[in-house]
Amino acid sequence: MTAPTIHVITGGAGFIAVNLARELLARGDRVWLIDDLSRGRREFVEALPAQDRVAFRQADVSVAGELDAGLDGVAEFAPGSPIEVWHLCANSDIPAGVNDPEVDLKDTFLVTHRLLAAMRAREWKVLHFASTSAVYGDHGSTSLTEESVCQPISNYGAMKLASEAAIHAAAEFFLQRVNIFRFPNVVGVPATHGVILDFLGKLAATPDCLEVLGNGTQRKAYLHVGDLIAGMMWIRARESQGTLTYNIGPPDDGVTVREIAELTRDRASPGARLQFGTEGRGWIGDVPRFSYDIGKLAQSGWTPALSSRDAIMRAIEEIWLQERKTEVSHGGAA
Amino acid sequence: MTAPTIHVITGGAGFIAVNLARELLARGDRVWLIDDLSRGRREFVEALPAQDRVAFRQADVSVAGELDAGLDGVAEFAPGSPIEVWHLCANSDIPAGVNDPEVDLKDTFLVTHRLLAAMRAREWKVLHFASTSAVYGDHGSTSLTEESVCQPISNYGAMKLASEAAIHAAAEFFLQRVNIFRFPNVVGVPATHGVILDFLGKLAATPDCLEVLGNGTQRKAYLHVGDLIAGMMWIRARESQGTLTYNIGPPDDGVTVREIAELTRDRASPGARLQFGTEGRGWIGDVPRFSYDIGKLAQSGWTPALSSRDAIMRAIEEIWLQERKTEVSHGGAA
Repeated sequence: MTAPTIHVITGGAGFIAVNLARELLARGDRVWLIDDLSRGRREFVEALPAQDRVAFRQADVSVAGELDAGLDGVAEFAPGSPIEVWHLCANSDIPAGVNDPEVDLKDTFLVTHRLLAAMRAREWKVLHFASTSAVYGDHGSTSLTEESVCQPISNYGAMKLASEAAIHAAAEFFLQRVNIFRFPNVVGVPATHGVILDFLGKLAATPDCLEVLGNGTQRKAYLHVGDLIAGMMWIRARESQGTLTYNIGPPDDGVTVREIAELTRDRASPGARLQFGTEGRGWIGDVPRFSYDIGKLAQSGWTPALSSRDAIMRAIEEIWLQERKTEVSHGGAA
Repeated sequence: MTAPTIHVITGGAGFIAVNLARELLARGDRVWLIDDLSRGRREFVEALPAQDRVAFRQADVSVAGELDAGLDGVAEFAPGSPIEVWHLCANSDIPAGVNDPEVDLKDTFLVTHRLLAAMRAREWKVLHFASTSAVYGDHGSTSLTEESVCQPISNYGAMKLASEAAIHAAAEFFLQRVNIFRFPNVVGVPATHGVILDFLGKLAATPDCLEVLGNGTQRKAYLHVGDLIAGMMWIRARESQGTLTYNIGPPDDGVTVREIAELTRDRASPGARLQFGTEGRGWIGDVPRFSYDIGKLAQSGWTPALSSRDAIMRAIEEIWLQERKTEVSHGGAA
């Protein structure tokens, strides 16, 4: 039997992290979750099973002192166990980062810089990094492979690319095994932000009309969080050495905002009228359409189970149930 | 006649900047030089012609307050003139940045981040950026085009790539015209660091033996500063809109460290014995060999005048004279 591993996860109380933690706990491993709780939620952590194998520390990873305190005790959590780091924390409000570049400097890039320094000091050598399709920028309809030129058009994409660059340099110096996962929008529960939650919120406020930012023609790839976790675990299990970069995305070029709006409306408020804007892009820095080549991942033997449309449909159902539960529990407490 | 332009140059007291400033002044323009004088030298600035069209401010570009003070008065230097920014400042001690990632974070990346914020606040829209061949990393003997994958192996290369990424995002938001120049080692005078000055210094100390880091087989491309300035001016003159990236390098795959050592020895201390190390790389983060594709630049109609070997030979002569002059003037002052 393999010795259990300690997984240090930044952004550990976030949507993706708690799904990852659940999978790792199911394998018998331990998770050490670090989060500043600016977007992540303590109740997501408390809802995890096997709490004796879960540690949580509230800390801002971009602040060296807080990170060091947040990592204090990791090795003692299961003495002698191998340690792997999953770096998931980042600013997740891309428009906010376009308006104020300080946001992604600190929350998307400096977190990586500080984490690498902490890993170097502790001689931790295995890193899994959540990068993004936003590193590529706007390539029109050209299919994006891992070899495509990276010219990000948002500060979020830029600071994720900066993080990848810093990781490459660190890999030359002290990291032994690095997986860089570039993935598009991820949907599922527990949802804290994103287009579906946004639409559901709008429909709850005005059940007869759903106002959509942009003209609805933006087409984007969506990955269900279940597929993301499965894909990351697949790549991790290959146990390659060195630094590998993989696109993880659905096997299609996505769904339009119009389709998402229609599907959400049909589930939550069937009679509502859809009202679109006129712009082809929702906001500056938004890539209006991209096509994602997952040939490298497919060649390794794995593809996601759900298309973009299926991922959206499943997530709408999940988030709709999540929001109803929230309403019910709020109602019950009143 | 074209109106004179104000050129704001960061790293303005450095080796490349003063060569650039001399060219711009010869065209009748004005230069506003910013430098923290950590490596640049005030006497380089004082040696420029047309001092009434030269302004110098000592400031650390990575510190917002200092940068703002350093830029105070630019518009009034020649009211109504167009303003262009040349961003040349960076850490130039690559091994130092490998040992301490904070060095390139601050001196290679945060300088870019702060400068972009300052340009945005002032609505300056034209940027020329000195990037580097180090953004590519180690591709073996594969020829590097502007489309090649960037996986830097030094923090210097990583933070230059991070700077490019931030510039791309800024170009989406407010910059109108950006040229990114990726170039290898640049040689010429006034020399403040680099392999030739290093070898000359060692030969001055021990005239009978020159000790060389590494086994001497490392082959690198070298560009003479005269060619770099001519290439940048050529690209600038094309007045394209949007963001363009160009490799600027010699039309060859470089010279070996052994050749540089021999040529320097032959000029400065012909009888000296050469003593090599055993490693193929001088230090971690050093790319041992790379081949630079300058087809994009050549297709635009320009190629450098000097090969790597010719650039090195000319620079050895220039730096040897520079050092003799320094000795003589120090001797005279004693």
